Amino acid sequence: MINIVTPSTLPGFMELMPQDQILFNKMMDTIRKNYERFGFLPLDTPIIEKSEVLKAKGAGETEQQIYKVVKGHTDMSMRFDLTVPLAKYVAQYYSQLSFPFRRYQIGKVYRGERNQRGRFREFYQCDIDIIGDGSIGLINDAEIPSVIYSTFKDLGFDSFKIVINNRKILNGLFNSLNIEDTVGVLRTVDKIEKIGRDAVEAELTELGCSPESIVELFKFLEIVGTNDEILAKLKTLDYKDPVFIEGRDELETVVKYIRDFGVDEANFQIDLTIARGLDYYTGTVYETMIEGYESMGSVCSGGRYDDLAEFYINRKLPGVGISIGLTRLFYQLKEANLINFDTKDYTKAIVIPMDEAHIEASIELVAKIRNAGFNALVYTENAKLGKKFKYADSINAEYAIVIGDNEIANARYSLRNMETGEQNEFSAEEIVDYFKR
Amino acid sequence: MINIVTPSTLPGFMELMPQDQILFNKMMDTIRKNYERFGFLPLDTPIIEKSEVLKAKGAGETEQQIYKVVKGHTDMSMRFDLTVPLAKYVAQYYSQLSFPFRRYQIGKVYRGERNQRGRFREFYQCDIDIIGDGSIGLINDAEIPSVIYSTFKDLGFDSFKIVINNRKILNGLFNSLNIEDTVGVLRTVDKIEKIGRDAVEAELTELGCSPESIVELFKFLEIVGTNDEILAKLKTLDYKDPVFIEGRDELETVVKYIRDFGVDEANFQIDLTIARGLDYYTGTVYETMIEGYESMGSVCSGGRYDDLAEFYINRKLPGVGISIGLTRLFYQLKEANLINFDTKDYTKAIVIPMDEAHIEASIELVAKIRNAGFNALVYTENAKLGKKFKYADSINAEYAIVIGDNEIANARYSLRNMETGEQNEFSAEEIVDYFKR
Repeated sequence: MINIVTPSTLPGFMELMPQDQILFNKMMDTIRKNYERFGFLPLDTPIIEKSEVLKAKGAGETEQQIYKVVKGHTDMSMRFDLTVPLAKYVAQYYSQLSFPFRRYQIGKVYRGERNQRGRFREFYQCDIDIIGDGSIGLINDAEIPSVIYSTFKDLGFDSFKIVINNRKILNGLFNSLNIEDTVGVLRTVDKIEKIGRDAVEAELTELGCSPESIVELFKFLEIVGTNDEILAKLKTLDYKDPVFIEGRDELETVVKYIRDFGVDEANFQIDLTIARGLDYYTGTVYETMIEGYESMGSVCSGGRYDDLAEFYINRKLPGVGISIGLTRLFYQLKEANLINFDTKDYTKAIVIPMDEAHIEASIELVAKIRNAGFNALVYTENAKLGKKFKYADSINAEYAIVIGDNEIANARYSLRNMETGEQNEFSAEEIVDYFKR
Repeated sequence: MINIVTPSTLPGFMELMPQDQILFNKMMDTIRKNYERFGFLPLDTPIIEKSEVLKAKGAGETEQQIYKVVKGHTDMSMRFDLTVPLAKYVAQYYSQLSFPFRRYQIGKVYRGERNQRGRFREFYQCDIDIIGDGSIGLINDAEIPSVIYSTFKDLGFDSFKIVINNRKILNGLFNSLNIEDTVGVLRTVDKIEKIGRDAVEAELTELGCSPESIVELFKFLEIVGTNDEILAKLKTLDYKDPVFIEGRDELETVVKYIRDFGVDEANFQIDLTIARGLDYYTGTVYETMIEGYESMGSVCSGGRYDDLAEFYINRKLPGVGISIGLTRLFYQLKEANLINFDTKDYTKAIVIPMDEAHIEASIELVAKIRNAGFNALVYTENAKLGKKFKYADSINAEYAIVIGDNEIANARYSLRNMETGEQNEFSAEEIVDYFKR
């Protein structure tokens, strides 16, 4: 007697049915194609690393979420993002790499999140980063939004907004206003959308901000308008703080280059309130919102950082990058019915032999279709015709071709569109030509 | 002071430089494209599963190699192959799947192998399987070699041999010869290439085979020749055992269909001595050898099994499948200098602005090249021209385009082939047309 174990998947681990997996893969392929088109080189680092390497920086709140791996005596863990492995990689192979080092990586990462709908413990991140040796030009800060733009266009979205800011503007402002608890104030300001102005004001007071500085802060935060209007208003502020001025000038240059890269003005917007994390980003920061679905949060975020790998190498390696959390994005888009792909063209044709005597002819026909580059298969089992068509439906084949004695005798095949039911008679060569058109 | 942690990668975990990663990805893409063209649906199961699920069958010798995962209270492990997760998946979603269920999966698996050159603890498997509900036609056994054939052709190989056999022939023979320790004798016979005839004979005697049965066994094992010769010789053997006869007939049918699928006779060969594992496969079995590099061992193996998921579901789900161990294969091909791809066409062009004044024009040109579908980038940093060209070389860009005042004034650009040094002057549109040709 075999002892049956109930087959089940761990909670928080996405596992899709094949038709959904086709959609997921189409999204991933689209992202990858865009990353490659922008000249990013591929990387694929191990999912497991030494714990001391992963935690070199101190994993912070992520520490509690780390999956530990046990085998032999080495203290190992599963990566919780793709940035730490990149930092390790760049430090480790520094002398063999050319800078700017432009790499993309698409891979699974692991975090022991609290179990709740739409939160995943195993999920794909799709990252690009451009790493400089000592310094890295501002043009790179502008190229990143153009990658986001191109990628989300190809994912089938028109109404999305890339939101940009420069952390130096906020930091410089805080200097000018004698706000010392930069981190605390940034964290509070970051919450304005969530908790509202009054709550933010109260928190700021608690953090030791003077009433005057709070007034100035809000005056600043209320700078809105078109990109050019915001840039113009920023120039009228007379803060002399050099960091503020640097941030303002950088933002202006970045906006100019973003336009050069051909990003539509409707798809990017300066927002002086976004800060995007607290201790990591140091210049330009990005978020991406699907318009009408802002509750999803940012679907693609990132920014510029001063030093990627300071915990692994004694060299300054500044960079700029973004990440798309694909697993969560796919889940959200699916829930909102916003996936802009279908699976219809995955399986182009299924060839159905009437019975065993027609298998050879079916094999020959399917070979011709495959050789032309299309995905196709033969239905191989004995079954009633109705069952065979049901199968063709279930795998979402675009066309079905039934082969019997007549078809073989005449070398003409009836091509049935599985969606419309429309049928047309073709020779094998005509079928391939028809598919190619 | 920051505490520097030495960046290092765990032994047995492959981590490639970008140019090698491009090659690796080309191989993986080629395999995937072939699997899809044959109508296999994609699957992506979690890397971590409940230990009781992974070990339902009893992991056998693999047990010692399993990576355990610790987070919370669930007993979890990392998958050691893609077959057990497939069995779990098919049992779990049985009622939602259509059979024959044709799936491919390409993903990383984990085994704590002894640390030695060319052995990996994290490695990619690229699997296809066709699973039937109750039964699955013999035509599927023939289609699998046609997938191997198409895949290895596309990987750039001509001289490879798909070796096939049918386990029932061996099993039936053993019945006829009253050999009881089937498993032991199969294991011994399997070693004939490694340890030679005399050692096998001695072992067989130890296993209780009579001198007569050993003579018969060797007579059988010496059946060689063309596929048709072997099939003909098999027919002259007068064993009446029904399993033997079934295996012989199956092999004959499979060979006929393999030919129908268009597999070149030079690329597949019956070999009655291959047994391919001991307790899993029950019918057709496959190995794939690169000719002249037989010491690599089989680079693609598999076969037919009676029951995929007996430990998870009370239904008979027979199937047939193969696996390519891509990480090891890549390592071996690289060592033998047998990779049939290059990285030249990955980065089509790098646009190099003479200095900052030429960045905008460079951005505009690179956008045109990208929009035409080619991978391209701008060199963004201030540097001497020599350094910029060195960079173009290091990323293996196919073409470099330097942009200065003259180029902008005339809207003509000098396209430099980085390999030959050849230069031609083109307009932006002509460059795109040239790339397309």
